[in-house]
Amino acid sequence: MVQEKKKKCTVCFEPSGLCIDVPPGSTLLKAAQQVGVYLTSICGGDGYCGKCKVIVDEGQFESRPTTLLTPEEMRENVVLACQTKVLSDMVVTVPKPHALETSQILLDTDTQRFSQLAAEVPEGVFEFEPLVQKLHVKMSPPTVSDNTADHERLYLAIRKQIDAPIMQTGCRILQNLSKMFRESDYDVSVTIGRRGGTTEVIEIEPAERYRTNYAVALDLGTTTVVAHLVDLTNANTLDTEATYNSQINFGEDYIRRIIYAEQNDAFDEMQNRIVHDVNNLIVTLASRKRIDLQDITTVTCAGNTAMIHFILNLDPTQIRKEPYIASAGFVPPIRAAEVGIQVNKRALLYCLPSVAAYIGSDIVAGILVTRMYTKDGVSLFADIGTNGEVVLGNKDWLVCASSSAGPAFEGSGVKHGMRAGAGAIEKLQIRRDGSSQIKTIGDGRPAGICGSGLLDTLGELFINGIIDRTGRIKQNHNPRVREGEDGLQYQIIQPGNGYQEIFITQADIDNLIRSKAGVFAAIRVLTESTQIKPDDIDIIYLAGGFGNYLNTKQAVTIGMLPDIPLEKIQYVGNTSIAGAKTVLLARKALETAEDIANNMTYFDLMSHPGYMDEFIRAKFLPHTDLSLFPSIKAQAKQVKGS
Amino acid sequence: MVQEKKKKCTVCFEPSGLCIDVPPGSTLLKAAQQVGVYLTSICGGDGYCGKCKVIVDEGQFESRPTTLLTPEEMRENVVLACQTKVLSDMVVTVPKPHALETSQILLDTDTQRFSQLAAEVPEGVFEFEPLVQKLHVKMSPPTVSDNTADHERLYLAIRKQIDAPIMQTGCRILQNLSKMFRESDYDVSVTIGRRGGTTEVIEIEPAERYRTNYAVALDLGTTTVVAHLVDLTNANTLDTEATYNSQINFGEDYIRRIIYAEQNDAFDEMQNRIVHDVNNLIVTLASRKRIDLQDITTVTCAGNTAMIHFILNLDPTQIRKEPYIASAGFVPPIRAAEVGIQVNKRALLYCLPSVAAYIGSDIVAGILVTRMYTKDGVSLFADIGTNGEVVLGNKDWLVCASSSAGPAFEGSGVKHGMRAGAGAIEKLQIRRDGSSQIKTIGDGRPAGICGSGLLDTLGELFINGIIDRTGRIKQNHNPRVREGEDGLQYQIIQPGNGYQEIFITQADIDNLIRSKAGVFAAIRVLTESTQIKPDDIDIIYLAGGFGNYLNTKQAVTIGMLPDIPLEKIQYVGNTSIAGAKTVLLARKALETAEDIANNMTYFDLMSHPGYMDEFIRAKFLPHTDLSLFPSIKAQAKQVKGS
Ligand code: FES
Ligand code: FES
Repeated sequence: MVQEKKKKCTVCFEPSGLCIDVPPGSTLLKAAQQVGVYLTSICGGDGYCGKCKVIVDEGQFESRPTTLLTPEEMRENVVLACQTKVLSDMVVTVPKPHALETSQILLDTDTQRFSQLAAEVPEGVFEFEPLVQKLHVKMSPPTVSDNTADHERLYLAIRKQIDAPIMQTGCRILQNLSKMFRESDYDVSVTIGRRGGTTEVIEIEPAERYRTNYAVALDLGTTTVVAHLVDLTNANTLDTEATYNSQINFGEDYIRRIIYAEQNDAFDEMQNRIVHDVNNLIVTLASRKRIDLQDITTVTCAGNTAMIHFILNLDPTQIRKEPYIASAGFVPPIRAAEVGIQVNKRALLYCLPSVAAYIGSDIVAGILVTRMYTKDGVSLFADIGTNGEVVLGNKDWLVCASSSAGPAFEGSGVKHGMRAGAGAIEKLQIRRDGSSQIKTIGDGRPAGICGSGLLDTLGELFINGIIDRTGRIKQNHNPRVREGEDGLQYQIIQPGNGYQEIFITQADIDNLIRSKAGVFAAIRVLTESTQIKPDDIDIIYLAGGFGNYLNTKQAVTIGMLPDIPLEKIQYVGNTSIAGAKTVLLARKALETAEDIANNMTYFDLMSHPGYMDEFIRAKFLPHTDLSLFPSIKAQAKQVKGS
Repeated sequence: MVQEKKKKCTVCFEPSGLCIDVPPGSTLLKAAQQVGVYLTSICGGDGYCGKCKVIVDEGQFESRPTTLLTPEEMRENVVLACQTKVLSDMVVTVPKPHALETSQILLDTDTQRFSQLAAEVPEGVFEFEPLVQKLHVKMSPPTVSDNTADHERLYLAIRKQIDAPIMQTGCRILQNLSKMFRESDYDVSVTIGRRGGTTEVIEIEPAERYRTNYAVALDLGTTTVVAHLVDLTNANTLDTEATYNSQINFGEDYIRRIIYAEQNDAFDEMQNRIVHDVNNLIVTLASRKRIDLQDITTVTCAGNTAMIHFILNLDPTQIRKEPYIASAGFVPPIRAAEVGIQVNKRALLYCLPSVAAYIGSDIVAGILVTRMYTKDGVSLFADIGTNGEVVLGNKDWLVCASSSAGPAFEGSGVKHGMRAGAGAIEKLQIRRDGSSQIKTIGDGRPAGICGSGLLDTLGELFINGIIDRTGRIKQNHNPRVREGEDGLQYQIIQPGNGYQEIFITQADIDNLIRSKAGVFAAIRVLTESTQIKPDDIDIIYLAGGFGNYLNTKQAVTIGMLPDIPLEKIQYVGNTSIAGAKTVLLARKALETAEDIANNMTYFDLMSHPGYMDEFIRAKFLPHTDLSLFPSIKAQAKQVKGS
């Protein structure tokens, strides 16, 4: 039956019940984006990631043929939202795995948990001196013999308390000065903010207000946005919150988002999305703690270079084109309101500095928090997220590189991969009998495998000889190894008893190996260039959203990190948010972050002559050159020999 | 006949033909202000200055009785606009003397002439380095091995050209950086502005634009606003223009305007007026020189403290109340657009610093321009305008005071007084036979007497024995001395042959003497406090809008300035506009102005124990103590003896 085309089609999404009118011919993905229904879309709508599956309950549509759907799924009216055009009013169900609406702020245990993975803010290292402070300023009222103008009287009084050689005050503040001083009898609270070498008088209020001063630190991740609410009067973190980055509808990684924005002139929308996410977090935190948004005077943020560009609406298009140039690495503080963040309208937004297009302020934050820039010995910092960024160095030098090996350890490009949320397998051991011993986040039924679980999976498969050194699944009469749609796959969880089957495919394994190889090759480029041997490395800091049960040993087993004693490998969690919080509390820390960013030498891996070789060599487990992994060599032998 | 009251009455003003609807009961002054018809109103509408006279041609009105109108005037339907309520539609004629509409921008010879009285900008003293500069910045495009972000690349390139340790760039600029650099192949014009210790990137344009950069210097006088249009690429003054300050409807002096604004909550309107005047000047200059307003990147202004408060809409109410405190003496640069000045929307507005409520930035500008702050010998600076400000000092110290003796030498409070415009008697000599030899501005028929003419008048009356040392007109059978409405008066111009009678009354003389006594008493307070004798004074700079034919000798004759050799007295004209222009061209000059303002010691005369005595002693001609004026003593004897 061919239905007559309508001018507008109403598409409703279940279970949220959100509906939107779209012109016929729109894709379901677009409709979902417009109404704010979250659909995973790693490929940005190109039809090859297969993540945007939805179920059509009612209505006419037209779908492009795809190999990404099983015959069962087709029978059940599952479609790829990005490949499906709306032809009539429709009702569509969004299946659980990506059932997240952007209107749903609080991401319960998933992101709550993630938000607690923050590295510790280094204590006692920086003097407690917030970027934005409220000072209690009491001046003696003027007399005929002491007739200094109000504005200069204020400056004199401020300079008695703090070092502020260069000061600035906006016209709006000056206009109220006279009245404010007389009403308060020259006893006021003065909010001052630091802008480079300049101290700005941001606000003048009645004296008692100096005791109320809050701030928000942000980690703008490609996948997850984390916010910490901080009391600036005592440096206490009051609460934390996290949400998915709702730009994710436009592509799972930021390169795809840049392309999408270019093709659709959607930079403003990209900014709106992230600002919307940030506002959701802030409003949630503030209302939970009964804090007036007007009392938030500072926002700091760290994130990769693209995310910083998105939130400021700087042009990010050159980030993805050779020679990969950011609009700005060092962004001056601006009013948070200027980008739409709903805090005090004169509050300042500080972005931590970045080093290059692919070494963002999240990495600078990591160096700040681990304090490797102060140490005599050499440290290695590796942040495994959507990309794998690596920094090597000590107090005298810092080198860094970024491997764009893909977000496999964040669960993308892995059939049963998922983020570190409820039900994710975060710990896995393969027993002698071939059965799996697992631990899931929240201890519920397993729904997929998150970063630390994937690390375990790869390591266990290798150690147990289920895959060979190239990662190939061996057809060893292992009952868990079966032929799937895309070749061999290994069954981690058997179906039945209400459990869903969870397995890992050859393609998944290849993706994970590519990711780990990218990270290791980056490390090799840095260590070779600086002639640092594994023994020279005092400590490895591993950052990222793996989960608290991360088994650092597995990172060595699979050859992602150099083979050094395990006690020298430290999982530091989310150092990005920790860095954002550190600078919030200590303006010297922001200066230090700037020094770090200035002093880091960036290696562009794509143009580095040795990188490709290193990458190919690292695509073995643990590596083609086993002499680099003596402990694994021994262990592998032991297992085989047992 | 009592006409029924209307809801709205239309009042039309001739000769401009401007009309406005007002509710019945409104005053004519208010109606004139609303429609933008200029009426003089020294008392601010209180009904006792008698300056707001208009002629009612048609319509019903209600006037309060007044002694300020002659019976003839009453017969001719002359009324005080401020004391006259509108009861019906009306047609009113504004007589010539104050027939100036604010909509009439170009004040022909009057203010044209005034605008040319500018003191010279000191040449070669300050390095030519405009507050806002356009730099031609050519960068090498980035490569993989030179991957500095655009923003930092820009800073590096700027710092190769100028000293700019602390830099700032707004988000709007950063957002366009990437595109701009690529379109121009990294060859651009960069507009930078100095804000205290910070250098701000104001604009980035195509390279060829660096050759186009204009600025406006302003003198915000209580009576007259002067603007100079300057080409910042070569320091040339392209054109000058002046207009009356249209706030004048709210009071001739700024104290009255503050009171008016307080009583009528009219601070916004006060700001609008002055900004409107400034915009008129700027538009006039720009269109005459065919310059795009967008190419004006800088505005500097000097003026008394109240005027600076008005234009920025700072609260000026404490200026007039003990202990006389300004909201701000040092005003940070802001965007000119923020106060409504219609130039480039990112252009900066710089106000020169002031010293105290009654020593404004116009005086600081005077010290800057005369360079007395650099000299070994002691200089005296006296600016005779609405107030009489006096500064004494040298390179080591500066003291200052302000006498609020009234604007008599600007023609206010003097029956036939007028500003230095066309027809003003600017030079007067009384011949042996009693007849007057005069010179008028523009050489036309005399319409009144301006500052320099009034100085001559007082001096000549005294030297010729027509008034005694107390200023009293002698009844000596001098045919020019007659009994007028308010006692004796001296006829300067006899009526007839198309000439109008011009005379000076006893009240006029008393006003002039009060003004000169105020100035001299202020000088005495400063010289006594610093133990400086007349002989110690190397030079006297006399500033103000007197006119180019100012006879400095008369200023000594009447006892306004100390009796020092005449070659040591220099008329310097409008130093306020010259100072504003100096800082425009040399940022070091602004820093110097700040040093000057910081280092000046202010004497509050009202609370000074010796001032009143000095004032009373100075109310004689030239002074009670003739030993202070040896040359005048000799001259007076000579005249008498002849
Ligand atoms: S297949 Fe639809 S978004 Fe990737
Ligand atoms: S008398 Fe009318 S304004 Fe002064």
